[in-house]
Amino acid sequence: MKLVKPKYMKSTVIAIIATVILSSFLNHQKKQRILFFGDSITQAGVQPTGYISILGQLLKQKGLDINYELIGAGISGNKVYDLYLRMDEDVLAKSPDMVVIWVGVNDVWHKRSYGTGTDADKFETFYTAIIKKLQQKNIKVALCTPAAIGEKTDFSNELDGDLNKYSTIIRSLAQKNKCSLIDLRQTFLQYNLANNKENKESGILTSDRVHLNEKGNQVVAQEMMKAIVSK
Amino acid sequence: MKLVKPKYMKSTVIAIIATVILSSFLNHQKKQRILFFGDSITQAGVQPTGYISILGQLLKQKGLDINYELIGAGISGNKVYDLYLRMDEDVLAKSPDMVVIWVGVNDVWHKRSYGTGTDADKFETFYTAIIKKLQQKNIKVALCTPAAIGEKTDFSNELDGDLNKYSTIIRSLAQKNKCSLIDLRQTFLQYNLANNKENKESGILTSDRVHLNEKGNQVVAQEMMKAIVSK
Amino acid sequence: MKLVKPKYMKSTVIAIIATVILSSFLNHQKKQRILFFGDSITQAGVQPTGYISILGQLLKQKGLDINYELIGAGISGNKVYDLYLRMDEDVLAKSPDMVVIWVGVNDVWHKRSYGTGTDADKFETFYTAIIKKLQQKNIKVALCTPAAIGEKTDFSNELDGDLNKYSTIIRSLAQKNKCSLIDLRQTFLQYNLANNKENKESGILTSDRVHLNEKGNQVVAQEMMKAIVSK
Amino acid sequence: MKLVKPKYMKSTVIAIIATVILSSFLNHQKKQRILFFGDSITQAGVQPTGYISILGQLLKQKGLDINYELIGAGISGNKVYDLYLRMDEDVLAKSPDMVVIWVGVNDVWHKRSYGTGTDADKFETFYTAIIKKLQQKNIKVALCTPAAIGEKTDFSNELDGDLNKYSTIIRSLAQKNKCSLIDLRQTFLQYNLANNKENKESGILTSDRVHLNEKGNQVVAQEMMKAIVSK
Repeated sequence: MKLVKPKYMKSTVIAIIATVILSSFLNHQKKQRILFFGDSITQAGVQPTGYISILGQLLKQKGLDINYELIGAGISGNKVYDLYLRMDEDVLAKSPDMVVIWVGVNDVWHKRSYGTGTDADKFETFYTAIIKKLQQKNIKVALCTPAAIGEKTDFSNELDGDLNKYSTIIRSLAQKNKCSLIDLRQTFLQYNLANNKENKESGILTSDRVHLNEKGNQVVAQEMMKAIVSK
Repeated sequence: MKLVKPKYMKSTVIAIIATVILSSFLNHQKKQRILFFGDSITQAGVQPTGYISILGQLLKQKGLDINYELIGAGISGNKVYDLYLRMDEDVLAKSPDMVVIWVGVNDVWHKRSYGTGTDADKFETFYTAIIKKLQQKNIKVALCTPAAIGEKTDFSNELDGDLNKYSTIIRSLAQKNKCSLIDLRQTFLQYNLANNKENKESGILTSDRVHLNEKGNQVVAQEMMKAIVSK
Repeated sequence: MKLVKPKYMKSTVIAIIATVILSSFLNHQKKQRILFFGDSITQAGVQPTGYISILGQLLKQKGLDINYELIGAGISGNKVYDLYLRMDEDVLAKSPDMVVIWVGVNDVWHKRSYGTGTDADKFETFYTAIIKKLQQKNIKVALCTPAAIGEKTDFSNELDGDLNKYSTIIRSLAQKNKCSLIDLRQTFLQYNLANNKENKESGILTSDRVHLNEKGNQVVAQEMMKAIVSK
Repeated sequence: MKLVKPKYMKSTVIAIIATVILSSFLNHQKKQRILFFGDSITQAGVQPTGYISILGQLLKQKGLDINYELIGAGISGNKVYDLYLRMDEDVLAKSPDMVVIWVGVNDVWHKRSYGTGTDADKFETFYTAIIKKLQQKNIKVALCTPAAIGEKTDFSNELDGDLNKYSTIIRSLAQKNKCSLIDLRQTFLQYNLANNKENKESGILTSDRVHLNEKGNQVVAQEMMKAIVSK
């Protein structure tokens, strides 16, 4: 018995250790790495009150934080072709399981502000190239429509028409390429129609017509949550 | 002599009656002079199938053509400040009773196409100066909102937002200055929502997203008719 | 004698008083009123270190200040058509003997920055209208070319080409309409070629590529002096 | 001896065959594949009178055509980031020995015409990425400056300043990355100063201010010749 016990103990210990290692390994295997790929809005998303941080908290509340690792990869001023240029280094090198692409505001806005926006056809071409490159690596892709450049609800935000046009392109890309769609443009329009009765140009979901305020970050985090958890 | 007197009296009476009729007729002859002040859309309005010509026909059908004289004063490429510059020569010199101002498409459009559109605040300043100058001469003023740059009904015409913004300015100017408003932007939007189910960018009321096709000229003429006859 | 003296004295006193009044009247008549009509550069010109103030000092140094009255009429952001709009109130109402027009920077610059610059042909049309209106009132007119948008000397200031184009238009207008020309564009180019060996984009005659620094105000005042005193 | 002779002959035959094969192989090895990577100007370059075709004739005249294979890879409307996007397919897949990059006109021009030009810093970033990717494959790289947008010689071509700015960036990139420089901007300026005394905006080396006319194609071919043969 003396001999047996230690043997038994030993194998028990080994079994326990094995289980711990295995479960930690499995856990590690399970932890989905989600990368948020975008512009200044996403760059701010990793701040303590940013939408990526809030999303992390929402996941924790549901006990799902052990399943997800969230990575911010936003750079201020980025347009679709800037994302394409830094894919290898900033996205593929990080081996994400899923990439959430949120781009388009600068592609539209910079037409007016600097004369350096992106033509609609080239927006689609570069966006498609990004999707293809990710899907070839078996990375899941979710597309966001650009939320807002101005929050007026009487349809008089200067760039609304063009922003809607680029949103239409993104919706069509999601369908064609079987990507999830996080239709933030739609979300923001609905939210503003309900909550911006005074027709303000900012201050509802944005601080400056484009970048998210506290409420904006919450709303975006909730939309992201829906898209990610449902996968 | 006795016969002569009554005769004389009779002819006097006839003369008086004739004078009254004649003067009333001459009064009627003093047709209301309506001047259409605008850009290339109005320049084309005096063509045989143009909206001003159609308006003339509509007035004739109602037997009202003897009351109105219609004058076209549209010049291609005109923005609000171009109208201001040529007021003396092209408007005041013609002593109109009423001026219908239809401007704004180029003020918005040329921002994108040439970098030479009109700032919203200056659009309002120049527009106000035109109205004041006309009203000082006791000329009635009717304002039109810019109808369209693109006829898509999914709100993705690139310049819709800015066009709505300038239309809002014009509506506000009409109210502030007690001018009639011919809200062609509203008319075109409604018409397209009902008749452009395929979301075409032109071909419903315009030939090229901006300039009126046959139907467009008819619709505009009818709107003008309402505004003019109701005065 | 007693009677004569007082009489004599009296008439002498009257003569002296008359002379004083007359000379003051003549002086008053002689005092040329020069109005500087332009944009933010001219608006800043009336500041203590601005070019109009310096010009006043230069005139004083030559004892010519009793001959000239200098009036600033610059408004920030003004383009040629803004000048036209405010001529009656800001220029003609002041009955100037001479108007120095300095405009063009915003007409070129706002093409890129806001999409609301001025087309070259309309720049010429409005500029001509201003000149004609002044000359009809027998007001002398001096035209300035726009000095600079960037001071680089390797011809790589982004808007140099267009600024040269508008300067060419102004030089031609001066000749056609027999106005004095104050060719500040030429002055600035020459000064920078001599003094900006390091190819800096500002800091030589401007503080920010467009608005005058201390040296810039001095150089402009000297050029204005030449043009005014030679008249 | 009889036995030796055939042996000798055999080995001679083998030697000759070997030499032929080897020399043909070396010839094949020697034929440098030069790829012209650019926009509509380069797209037109492969036309019978285009600069690439003329370059082929110039090489033939010097008996050098056996040493070079010329490949056109120009696509209309391309900006620097469009080149980057299609590098794998249109350049690397063709295994060129040398790539002549000629881009920049649209990056500058489209700012004004469509609001979709390229920011100077991003122009440099994408251009650098292209050079690096080519040099990593041991491909020689030659850079061209953008020749012209307008041929006026009084420095009043609207976009001259910006074109000079982007040319400066390219010259600096050539130096930093040890690439050959074909300074077409300089060539065109010199040629126009000598041959465009009437200050025409096109018709000297271009047909329409941008695209090459017959003379323009010849001049470019000669400059390319110098750069290629000297390597």
